[in-house]
Amino acid sequence: MDKLINKLINGDKRSVARAITIIENNQQPEKKQLIKLLYPYTGKAKIIGITGPPGAGKSTLVDGLLYHIRKQQLTVGIIAIDPSSPYSGGAILGDRIRMQHHALDPGVFIRSMGNRGELGGLAKATEETVKVLDAMGNDLIIVETVGVGQSELEIMNTADTTVVVLHPSTGDSIQTAKAGIMEIADIFVINKSDLQGAEKMAYELEMLIGRTSSTVGWQKKLVKTIGTEKQGIDQLWESIREHQQFLASSELFQKKRAGSLHRDFKSYLHELFQLQVDKHLKQAYPNQADLVQEMSRKGSWQVAEEIYDKLLKPQIKEKAD
Amino acid sequence: MDKLINKLINGDKRSVARAITIIENNQQPEKKQLIKLLYPYTGKAKIIGITGPPGAGKSTLVDGLLYHIRKQQLTVGIIAIDPSSPYSGGAILGDRIRMQHHALDPGVFIRSMGNRGELGGLAKATEETVKVLDAMGNDLIIVETVGVGQSELEIMNTADTTVVVLHPSTGDSIQTAKAGIMEIADIFVINKSDLQGAEKMAYELEMLIGRTSSTVGWQKKLVKTIGTEKQGIDQLWESIREHQQFLASSELFQKKRAGSLHRDFKSYLHELFQLQVDKHLKQAYPNQADLVQEMSRKGSWQVAEEIYDKLLKPQIKEKAD
Repeated sequence: MDKLINKLINGDKRSVARAITIIENNQQPEKKQLIKLLYPYTGKAKIIGITGPPGAGKSTLVDGLLYHIRKQQLTVGIIAIDPSSPYSGGAILGDRIRMQHHALDPGVFIRSMGNRGELGGLAKATEETVKVLDAMGNDLIIVETVGVGQSELEIMNTADTTVVVLHPSTGDSIQTAKAGIMEIADIFVINKSDLQGAEKMAYELEMLIGRTSSTVGWQKKLVKTIGTEKQGIDQLWESIREHQQFLASSELFQKKRAGSLHRDFKSYLHELFQLQVDKHLKQAYPNQADLVQEMSRKGSWQVAEEIYDKLLKPQIKEKAD
Repeated sequence: MDKLINKLINGDKRSVARAITIIENNQQPEKKQLIKLLYPYTGKAKIIGITGPPGAGKSTLVDGLLYHIRKQQLTVGIIAIDPSSPYSGGAILGDRIRMQHHALDPGVFIRSMGNRGELGGLAKATEETVKVLDAMGNDLIIVETVGVGQSELEIMNTADTTVVVLHPSTGDSIQTAKAGIMEIADIFVINKSDLQGAEKMAYELEMLIGRTSSTVGWQKKLVKTIGTEKQGIDQLWESIREHQQFLASSELFQKKRAGSLHRDFKSYLHELFQLQVDKHLKQAYPNQADLVQEMSRKGSWQVAEEIYDKLLKPQIKEKAD
């Protein structure tokens, strides 16, 4: 593991890929060890989240951004997520093409992730993969995810700067995008802005932005792009940089980092507790049907309290004696 | 609390409303006590979940079902949920009208619930409210929820029989309804089946049903209704009864109950653990900023392990000595 970490923080792509596989497969105790050992090397990368409905043109925009990022000699890790796909590590979202483009560029690392387990699991795996790409030494990390549902919102929790990409052809996408996505967006992009309906959409968005802007001191931006023709990408890149500068100068960045430390802490603590519970249950009820029967007889609360008492209370009492 | 329980299990509507308020406000330790004390009186009601996109006509169908339910002298509790609404206890989903209709009928109890906190919270509150209406002595409980997203899927976990209501005017609703909803549906309803597109939708659904049916031994049903003209409601009611009979004669019912006991057990256990953690943290870090600072210095995993050790391990060691 020490060797893996050492190679990883020196930017070895093969080691990075191995680390991400450990995370994706939730391979314990390796994963825990990995995250713990990586921690000192994390916290430097700026994280950009890009989300929006399928077909909005996110991948093309990210490709466009890559040009600006590399021109400034910045290194970047890209995580491309499709929550609806069970497929992982490979060629979703047109990444194979991009991977070929950038395969020889040591400053770009791209990884696809699909949804292997429950939805919460994907958000967590993303957060942990971000840490790997951070420890790898990237200046920027782009998290690109398809869709505007609950799971995407969770994934976007990880981002410092959130870009929501819409396109005019889904007439009602502002409606369907719902409250949540409107709140988390720092920058809106109307891509394919030459299509019919773009003006109306821009107008509606400006109205929305006007209504929701001032809470944290950041005036949400609206950028119009035509990704396939590289139009508007420079404005988008500039808006992202502006938001990063804003974060650096405000308390918000510290708050975001504190929130993410807290979330991690809570979920790790519960993971440890759950391991203990599972161990105890396996001993106390070798036959799972017995546990179900007991719950059915006494009720779930009752059984939960009894097991909790066995795990914690008696020992506390002993200590008091 | 004993008085409340006593009145509640004898069908006193005011006590039922008070109990649900305790659940909605997550009032501790009353809620825990309530759920524990109600347990012996639960497990008899059949739970019908009804979901579908906004405007599909769910409320009208439920109204139509009420007629059949009451004609058979069955009692029913209805929980009407709008996850997108922060409003609760009142007049969402046209319930005020229904409430007026049935206000004097002692065999019908209706309650609206909105989304007060996080999404997971609503699913849990629904499960607990179902227990209250079950303990109240209802033969049937209808859980009606708007939408076809992740949160509605979670809510539908509670149901024995799940009815998914679609309407032809949303041309692509089978597409948008996605895999999840297709899997959980026991009965599909095409409401407003006189509208254009109903035939095509019925055809597509039949195809889907044909492909997904046989796994658990229940052949998914498709019912066409026109809720506003009371057409097809009797077939819907009959299909629901058929599914209930199927459940009673199969292992599936026991499996569903076991699954729900397990979920409760796990979430209760974690609730207890979290209370202990919160207490410990308040003592160890009266100033929350100190905790954040420590996590920032050592990493979340490290701090989680240390606190976990303090809460459990030393006591286990002492025991071993």
